[in-house]
Amino acid sequence: MFRTAELGQKVSKAEYNDRVPDLRIQLLEAQQDLRQANFPVIVLFTGVDGAGKGETANLLQEWMDPRWIVTRAYARKSEEEAERPGLWRYWRDLPRNGQVGIFLSAWYSRPYIERVYGKLNREQFEEALDRILTFERMLANDGALILKFWMHLGKKAQEKRFKKLEKDPLHAWRVTKKDWKHWKMYDEFIDAAEHTIMKTSIGRAPWTIVEGADERYRGLKVGETLLNGIRRRLAEADIEEAVNDAEGAYVLGTANGDGATPRTTVLQALDTTKSLSKDEYSKSLEKYQAKLNLLHRKARSEKVSVILVFEGWDAAGKGGAIRRITPALDARDYQVIPIAAPTDEEKAHHYLWRFWRHLSRAGRVTIFDRSWYGRVLVERIEGFASETEWRRAYAEINSFERALVEHGIVLIKYWIHISKEEQEARFRAREETSYKAWKLTEEDWRNRERWDEYDAAVNDMVGQTSTRLAPWVLVEGDDKRYARVKVLKTLCDRLEERLK
Amino acid sequence: MFRTAELGQKVSKAEYNDRVPDLRIQLLEAQQDLRQANFPVIVLFTGVDGAGKGETANLLQEWMDPRWIVTRAYARKSEEEAERPGLWRYWRDLPRNGQVGIFLSAWYSRPYIERVYGKLNREQFEEALDRILTFERMLANDGALILKFWMHLGKKAQEKRFKKLEKDPLHAWRVTKKDWKHWKMYDEFIDAAEHTIMKTSIGRAPWTIVEGADERYRGLKVGETLLNGIRRRLAEADIEEAVNDAEGAYVLGTANGDGATPRTTVLQALDTTKSLSKDEYSKSLEKYQAKLNLLHRKARSEKVSVILVFEGWDAAGKGGAIRRITPALDARDYQVIPIAAPTDEEKAHHYLWRFWRHLSRAGRVTIFDRSWYGRVLVERIEGFASETEWRRAYAEINSFERALVEHGIVLIKYWIHISKEEQEARFRAREETSYKAWKLTEEDWRNRERWDEYDAAVNDMVGQTSTRLAPWVLVEGDDKRYARVKVLKTLCDRLEERLK
Repeated sequence: MFRTAELGQKVSKAEYNDRVPDLRIQLLEAQQDLRQANFPVIVLFTGVDGAGKGETANLLQEWMDPRWIVTRAYARKSEEEAERPGLWRYWRDLPRNGQVGIFLSAWYSRPYIERVYGKLNREQFEEALDRILTFERMLANDGALILKFWMHLGKKAQEKRFKKLEKDPLHAWRVTKKDWKHWKMYDEFIDAAEHTIMKTSIGRAPWTIVEGADERYRGLKVGETLLNGIRRRLAEADIEEAVNDAEGAYVLGTANGDGATPRTTVLQALDTTKSLSKDEYSKSLEKYQAKLNLLHRKARSEKVSVILVFEGWDAAGKGGAIRRITPALDARDYQVIPIAAPTDEEKAHHYLWRFWRHLSRAGRVTIFDRSWYGRVLVERIEGFASETEWRRAYAEINSFERALVEHGIVLIKYWIHISKEEQEARFRAREETSYKAWKLTEEDWRNRERWDEYDAAVNDMVGQTSTRLAPWVLVEGDDKRYARVKVLKTLCDRLEERLK
Repeated sequence: MFRTAELGQKVSKAEYNDRVPDLRIQLLEAQQDLRQANFPVIVLFTGVDGAGKGETANLLQEWMDPRWIVTRAYARKSEEEAERPGLWRYWRDLPRNGQVGIFLSAWYSRPYIERVYGKLNREQFEEALDRILTFERMLANDGALILKFWMHLGKKAQEKRFKKLEKDPLHAWRVTKKDWKHWKMYDEFIDAAEHTIMKTSIGRAPWTIVEGADERYRGLKVGETLLNGIRRRLAEADIEEAVNDAEGAYVLGTANGDGATPRTTVLQALDTTKSLSKDEYSKSLEKYQAKLNLLHRKARSEKVSVILVFEGWDAAGKGGAIRRITPALDARDYQVIPIAAPTDEEKAHHYLWRFWRHLSRAGRVTIFDRSWYGRVLVERIEGFASETEWRRAYAEINSFERALVEHGIVLIKYWIHISKEEQEARFRAREETSYKAWKLTEEDWRNRERWDEYDAAVNDMVGQTSTRLAPWVLVEGDDKRYARVKVLKTLCDRLEERLK
C-alpha cells in the first residue's frame, strides 16, 4: 500500500518557487469562498514519525489566512476529558462552518498505538475503527469535508531523518527514545496503518498517502490536494443547494400530507387512565426521593454520571417531573439544561455539538428539558431539517447515545404522554392561572393542530431510537402524580441496577 | 450586623399564598423585559449552612422561566480549573446579557472558609476580598446587576435546623460532621462574614441579609428584592441609553478632533533605524530558537504557562514574528489565537470573556494575534466603545493581567512598531506580490489615515497598562530581522528569569 510513497519523490527549489505563489493565491481564494459555505473543512495529519506532520500543518497555517484556520494537537487526556466519552475532546474542537480545522493525529492516534502495543485485540481494534467511521460519516453527512493525510517514510528514510534531526541542535529534542523504539517496531506499525487506512477510507473522508521525505514535495502535494478538495466540495454544495430547494417542497408536501397513519401508534396504545391517590403519591414521593438521594450519593462517589432526557407534549408536565427529582440531589451535582433556540456558534456546527458541550463531569446528573430529539420532532414537522437530515438523525443519535452508555453513563429518555383532551384542559387552566399564562403561547395552539403529525413522528422516533442500550420510557401523564412517581421510580431502578 | 436577621421573621401560609402569584407574574414580566436588555443579572447566595441557600435558588428557578436562568454550584476544583487563575471557573459561567445566573457560594466560599481555618492571615484575606471587589466592580461597570444574599440563622436557630433535618430521612444527608464542626465555630464564621459583607457591599453589588429560618419569609424576601433590583436596573438602563446617545456624539467629536498631540509619543521616541545583517540574523535566529526550545520544555514540565500578546501597526510583521517562535515549540503545546470579530455569544458577555475562554492549561503557550487591547485602540478610535467604556478598560485590563501574572503565568505584550514610511512601502509591496495582496484591504488604507490618532491611543495605552508586573515591549520593526530576533530574545530572557 505504501510502495508508491517510497519512490523518493522530489521537487526542485526552482519548481517549488514557481508553483507556490499561485497555489497560495488559490488557497486564499478558496478560503474566501469557503467562508460563505455551510460546511467545515477537517484536515487530519497522521503517519510515520518524522514524515513532516507538524511541519506541513505549520506550512498550511502560513500559506492561508490564519483567522479562518485552527490547528489542534493533543497530549495526554486531562482528568476532565477522561471523564467524558473518548471522542468528546475532538467534538468540542471541531471547526465551525466556513472554517478549516487541522488535527494532528487526533482520533486515530490512540487505537492505532494501542493495537501495535497489543493493548487492543483484533476485535477491539475493529470496534474502535468502527466508532471512528461512524463519527466521520456523521460529520461528512452533515456536509463536512474531511481530508486525511498519511505522511509516510520508508524504514530507511525514517532512520535517515531521525539521524539528521539529532544532529540539528534546534530539532534534536524531537527525536526521543520512544521514536527509536517505534522505529524498531516499524513493520508492526505499518501493518496496523494499512488496516486502518483500508477500513476508513470512505468517499466523503478519503485518505491521501504522501511521501514525506522531501519538504517541498510533501508541501505542494498536501496544499494541492486540499485546494482541489475544497474546490470540489464547494461545487457540490452549489448543486446540493439546488436539489434541496426542490426537495424541500417535496418534504413539506409529505409532512403536511393526508396524515395516512391509521395504525395504532405507541402513544395511542398507552393507558392514560393510570393514576395515584394523593396519599399514595405523598408516600411514594417521599420514598423514592430518599432512595434517589442515597443512590445518587453512591453514584457520585463511584463517578457514575446520569443523563436524563425529557420530551413530551406541551403541558405534559416535564418541568414538574424535573422539580420532583432535583430536591433529592445536591445543587453541586446536577444541571438542568433547557433547550432553547441555538446561538449562532451552535448553528455553525453539527446539530449535536450544542449537546456535546453540556456533557458534565463524572458523577453528575444532567437533565435535558427537551433535547437532540428536536431534530426528528419539531425540526422534521416544521421543515427546519430536510427529510434526508432527519432520517439520518436516527442513526446519528443512536451512535451518540451508544458512546454515552458505553462510557458508563446512565441514560434515561422519558416521553411524557397526555391525551389530547387532557392537553386542552391544561391549556385552559393555564389561561386562567395568572402566573402560568406565560407558559402558553400561540405556538402551543398551533402545535396542537399538528397533533397527528407529532403522534406519527413520535412513533417513528420510538421505533428507531428505542435501543437495547437506551430504551425510551413512555410515561402515562394524564395523572401528574402517577407520572412523577413513575419518572422517579424508573430513575431509582436504573441507578440501582447500574450500581449493583 | 446580623441582629435584625435573628428576629424570628415569619410569613403565614395565607399571606404567602396571597402574595406569591402576583410576585411570580411580576418576576416573569421582568424577565421578559430583561431579555431585551444589554446586561446580565448575577444573583449570589451565601451564608450560614442550613439557612436555605439551595432551596431558595430552587424556588427562583421554579418561579421564573427556566430558559433564561441558570444555577451554578461549585465543588472541589478540577485539575483543569486549578491550572488557571482562581476566578476562571466563574468567568466561564457568567450569564449572558438578558439572562439570570444564580451562583451558590461561588467566589466568596474559598477565602471565607480559609480565613476561618486560619489558612489566610488578615492581610491575605484582605487581598482576596480586594480581588473579588475588583472583579465585581468590573462586571457592574459593564452593566451587570449583582445581587448578593447572605442567608442567615442565629446559632440556636442553626442547631434547631440541623436537628430537624437529621430527623427527616430525605434530608438527613445534608447535615454532615463538618456542619456540626462549623456550628461549634459559629462565632469565628460570623466574624469573617461581618468583615466580608462590610468590605464588599458596594452600590452596584449590594448585600442583602435574609433571615433564613422561615421558608416562606425568606422566599418572598429574596423574590421581592430580586424583582425590585431588576426593575430599578431596567429603568436605569433606559436613562443610560439616552445619555450614551448624547455622549456618543461627543466622543466622536473628540476622537476626530484636531489631533492636538504635539508632544512626543513613546512610539515617536523609538529608534527605527535598528537593524541586523542577514548573517547576524541567521545566527541569532538559530541560537534563540534552540534556546527557546530548551526553556519551553523546562517550562512545560514545571507547568509554567506563557501568554504572548502581539499588537502593532498593520503590516508591522506580527505574523512573521509569530512564525519564528512556533517552530521551536511542540504543536501540542501552543495555540495561536487570531482575534477576529466577536461571535454573538461573545458579544453578549463582558468584552474580556472571549479571551478568558481561550486561556490554556498549565505549561502551554498561548499566542494572541491582536488581543483585548482592541478595546483601547480600534474600538476607541472607531467609536465602537464609548469613552467611559474604553477609559475604564485600562483598569480592567490591568486587573485581568495581574490575575494572570499572580497565577504564575509569563505574560509578554509586544507592540511592533514601524514608521509611517515603512508601512507605505510594505503596503505597496503587498499590492505587487500576488499572494500577499489579500492581506491588504481598504480598511488598512483607512486606518493609515488615522495614524496620529492611533499614535496617541498607543501612547495612552502604554502609559496606562505598562505595569511592573506586565510591561510593554516596544519592538522597532522597520527591519524585520531585528524585530524578530528582539521578540525571540525577550521571550527567552523572560522565560529564563521565571524558571530560575
